[in-house]
Amino acid sequence: MLYEITVPQFIKMLHNLDACLDKAKAFSEAKKCDPEVLLGSRLAPDQFALMRQLQIACDTAKLCAARLTGKEAQAPVHEDNEKTLADAKARIGKVIAYLKTFSATDFAGAESRRISQARWEGKHLSGSEYTLQHALPNFYFHLTTAYAILRHNGVELGKKDYLGPMPFQS
Amino acid sequence: MLYEITVPQFIKMLHNLDACLDKAKAFSEAKKCDPEVLLGSRLAPDQFALMRQLQIACDTAKLCAARLTGKEAQAPVHEDNEKTLADAKARIGKVIAYLKTFSATDFAGAESRRISQARWEGKHLSGSEYTLQHALPNFYFHLTTAYAILRHNGVELGKKDYLGPMPFQS
Repeated sequence: MLYEITVPQFIKMLHNLDACLDKAKAFSEAKKCDPEVLLGSRLAPDQFALMRQLQIACDTAKLCAARLTGKEAQAPVHEDNEKTLADAKARIGKVIAYLKTFSATDFAGAESRRISQARWEGKHLSGSEYTLQHALPNFYFHLTTAYAILRHNGVELGKKDYLGPMPFQS
Repeated sequence: MLYEITVPQFIKMLHNLDACLDKAKAFSEAKKCDPEVLLGSRLAPDQFALMRQLQIACDTAKLCAARLTGKEAQAPVHEDNEKTLADAKARIGKVIAYLKTFSATDFAGAESRRISQARWEGKHLSGSEYTLQHALPNFYFHLTTAYAILRHNGVELGKKDYLGPMPFQS
């Protein structure tokens, strides 16, 4: 169950984010400004800028899949050294490619797997608790904050850019 | 399955939002400003202001539970006529109380239930598609945007205010 509510939606939403960055690029060109200005923008002085929001969204998805499947030690390490819009898009692409290596069978037993990280000081959550109360709300938090930073700067984005296409049936 | 990934987390996150509004109230008092200034704030001229973000977050949670259980016709109607911070908190409280009326058994068969709404012009999603690709990302979108509007105005909020407490075990 945890595969279905994480990996496919992570991939979809990261594609949507990538498309938002294409709109940010077009906006920068029209305004004759450096797109890295947008990547350095934030909504409050003590908030992470757009680039960091993207990096955390990527890491949240990557580490959620890795942790739930017991593969954290093998997860690719990303150095957070991206500078340009092209770098940001490449990072998103690498995480999408990594997520595509997982299948539902990798997630067998994930619900009850003990999930921890260094900052939790030895404490843990179950895989279900971690997914529902930590990974998913965090993933959407950083995606929405990225979107909000772009909107605040005037990039023309709408809810459809965030949600992406729906698999409607007639 | 759809109950577990929606209702308990909706309730938790709406409680977190309510606590963020308490911090907004304290901030307004310290700054000697009207808290309704915050409720009318937005991050872009063509974005919904904070009050509308709260209302949509509430409706997204309410209607998700109602639609997945075939109870949309009986769902309470909220008029979106809130003006004050107390009104906003009362709205959140009403939706939390409504969500608490549901149990997992109400969600039997929800995965394959046909979900539609007027703006979809006769098209539909399955209950699973609607939950994962529409309701959850929308819910977190409006919660995070509400948080971002408060952060942008200087209210001291951190990620823990958004996520709420974790059920850590030692």
